[in-house]
Amino acid sequence: MDAHKQLTIGLFGFGVVGEGLYKVLQQTPSLKATLKKVCIKNPEKKRNAPADLFTTDKNILLNDPEINVIVEVIDDADAAFKIVSKALKNKKDVVSASKKMIAEHLPALLKLQEETGHSLLYESAACASIPVIRNLEEYYDNDLLHSIKAIVNGSTNFILTKMFEDKLDFRDALLLAQQLGFAESNPKLDVEGYDANNKWTFLLTHAYGIIESPENLLFSGIQNISADDARVAKEKNFDIKLVAQAKKLNNGKVAAFVLPQFIKHDDHLAFVKNEYNGVVIESGFADKQFFYGKGAGSFPTASAVLSDISALRYQYKYEYKKLYHHKPHELGDDFYLRVYVSFDDLKFVPREKFEWIEEWHAGEQKKYLVGVISYKELKDNNWWRKHNTSLILFPDPVIENVEIRGLKKKSLELAGLI
Amino acid sequence: MDAHKQLTIGLFGFGVVGEGLYKVLQQTPSLKATLKKVCIKNPEKKRNAPADLFTTDKNILLNDPEINVIVEVIDDADAAFKIVSKALKNKKDVVSASKKMIAEHLPALLKLQEETGHSLLYESAACASIPVIRNLEEYYDNDLLHSIKAIVNGSTNFILTKMFEDKLDFRDALLLAQQLGFAESNPKLDVEGYDANNKWTFLLTHAYGIIESPENLLFSGIQNISADDARVAKEKNFDIKLVAQAKKLNNGKVAAFVLPQFIKHDDHLAFVKNEYNGVVIESGFADKQFFYGKGAGSFPTASAVLSDISALRYQYKYEYKKLYHHKPHELGDDFYLRVYVSFDDLKFVPREKFEWIEEWHAGEQKKYLVGVISYKELKDNNWWRKHNTSLILFPDPVIENVEIRGLKKKSLELAGLI
Repeated sequence: MDAHKQLTIGLFGFGVVGEGLYKVLQQTPSLKATLKKVCIKNPEKKRNAPADLFTTDKNILLNDPEINVIVEVIDDADAAFKIVSKALKNKKDVVSASKKMIAEHLPALLKLQEETGHSLLYESAACASIPVIRNLEEYYDNDLLHSIKAIVNGSTNFILTKMFEDKLDFRDALLLAQQLGFAESNPKLDVEGYDANNKWTFLLTHAYGIIESPENLLFSGIQNISADDARVAKEKNFDIKLVAQAKKLNNGKVAAFVLPQFIKHDDHLAFVKNEYNGVVIESGFADKQFFYGKGAGSFPTASAVLSDISALRYQYKYEYKKLYHHKPHELGDDFYLRVYVSFDDLKFVPREKFEWIEEWHAGEQKKYLVGVISYKELKDNNWWRKHNTSLILFPDPVIENVEIRGLKKKSLELAGLI
Repeated sequence: MDAHKQLTIGLFGFGVVGEGLYKVLQQTPSLKATLKKVCIKNPEKKRNAPADLFTTDKNILLNDPEINVIVEVIDDADAAFKIVSKALKNKKDVVSASKKMIAEHLPALLKLQEETGHSLLYESAACASIPVIRNLEEYYDNDLLHSIKAIVNGSTNFILTKMFEDKLDFRDALLLAQQLGFAESNPKLDVEGYDANNKWTFLLTHAYGIIESPENLLFSGIQNISADDARVAKEKNFDIKLVAQAKKLNNGKVAAFVLPQFIKHDDHLAFVKNEYNGVVIESGFADKQFFYGKGAGSFPTASAVLSDISALRYQYKYEYKKLYHHKPHELGDDFYLRVYVSFDDLKFVPREKFEWIEEWHAGEQKKYLVGVISYKELKDNNWWRKHNTSLILFPDPVIENVEIRGLKKKSLELAGLI
């Protein structure tokens, strides 16, 4: 009665994830999947596997009719896209872990999946061991997903945890993350939010049917967060996390961004420390759900790749329900954000751009304000990224109507700031 | 390219879950599943659906060749088993939410699935909106699952939360749970641990391939937990939760039980309050994962039923990997538990049965001790369930080797207790 497809795998990449997968496959004979060939870039490097498993010729894998699954875990988005495209065209199912490639090429990848009818799975590309994509596909319906917020980058979360709990400064915390293998090869990708934003790009597709280029999303990393910001957060009983967030607005559009955020101690995300990831989903039927697990590392990533391979045995495909079976959502820009902004000198902060300012601190240490500002202002201008200025969202940052406060700019005037 | 099976559903039961499902189905047209007929027991009752949808004759559903999916959400385990058996034999796939039925009839249900080749899914039967069964099936391999601990009963968790946070006494908290619809129709099933134990019975099958009758597991509920116990827990900085737990022992067997437990404030399960459920899984590859969500209520349960229906479109079946593709694990009994026992009178507690006693309090309020006792002693004897005695596990309660302490019974003697 076993109607499962026999899987013969061609693997691209034998770095930490590729080798992790090789080991995991050896330890799970129940999968009955055969690893036939591994394509690598550097044939000179010593590998912990038989030499005849390896080749440097990608076509040996892509043109082998016996190989019906291509698994791609390489660290080069452009090369990965070529491999994945060719594999789908050659009638193979594909498992990929390349978040950057998926984020940048999603429209083309969707088209290829439609044209070829073959499956592309990439659970490991977001939150590694947390089955967030599969859950968004299977457990939520578009009309019902009120909001989703997540910590999707283990490296920045590790750095922030070490800054908060062990009082390490930013550089030392980053170095430690790199030594432990939690950081991307280029730390800028993690630290400046590119990696989190890439993941958020395609998670928005599975959550809301939104297709956007990563550069069109509002995002930032943690590069400007200082010990002073951490001190203020502590005073206010908050942690600081880099949070990817999306929320359905009253106008039917979706507010989405990836920004540092103050997190209350009783928030689910406060629980997510070190290299872990976490996802909080609020929906109409299932109410609030929270998923937590390792978001990086060779084995957690390999185990997610393995779960995708396992799903291919019963011809599992992402349905992109929110995209194809519903009217897809659009990104909204008509909303406001409650923010903390710290700065060296007030002249770097355009006070008149704020709807109102709630707090104002100009002590001897770094100065800061708390106020409400429009999303468009942050999206269109860069002052908050420059001159050592840092911007951190408040909990529940999205404000849809600033008029109801009746305070628009009033408090600014009262404070003599404009 | 849509190779999905068209689903025509026959539904048994139109209580809170059945009606919830009816509403959820109406709100998710993307599923393209048709609800053809609903079988109910009481035709007189007013229903919020067209009258011609209903029948009291189960054979109208079970013998309809057009109906290819039977969904069963009735509150009668024996009737449910007959319906599910007949449906599978009649070549229909089945979705069930009846934990008691599944726990009590699992061997027969496994056989029926094998013989008929049809699928029986029951994600909603454990932790409702948390996809725990699917994750155990898809994301974990037998050799790698170190431990799993979970809050699987929302009703008792709600009661304990209200006792701790709002200082309600047990009766008032139970009443509130019933008013809010979190409790089973027979509160004994929740409060005395039967419901949690039923769920644990089949979760052990998916986690470890263990098949046991529910009555063979060591379990208890929260019926004997008093305000005094809550006070002691608070002093020790613990919460009290009813925790279902399983842990791989060094001898390859599995320790498993459902008992009240002290929970540290930084434990994942401390986060699980009110009617929520939570599952913490520790494994070799994915490391530690935590799933959290609503474990009861009409919509969370209906949404889990819906996800099972959705999975039937691509012929999804539980593979019971740990049972069929591995050497299944056995329950172990050769281990010890670190326990808190409170009692009215020392004469009700067989001190000589303890390996050692670490704490001893005989104040004016309820007396208690903390000690280590063998699993077999608790399994085989009932003194700890009687005379107002309550037993609560300590965090990390499983101790495999009591000899290493070199203290066996020594401290008891020293304390003059034996």
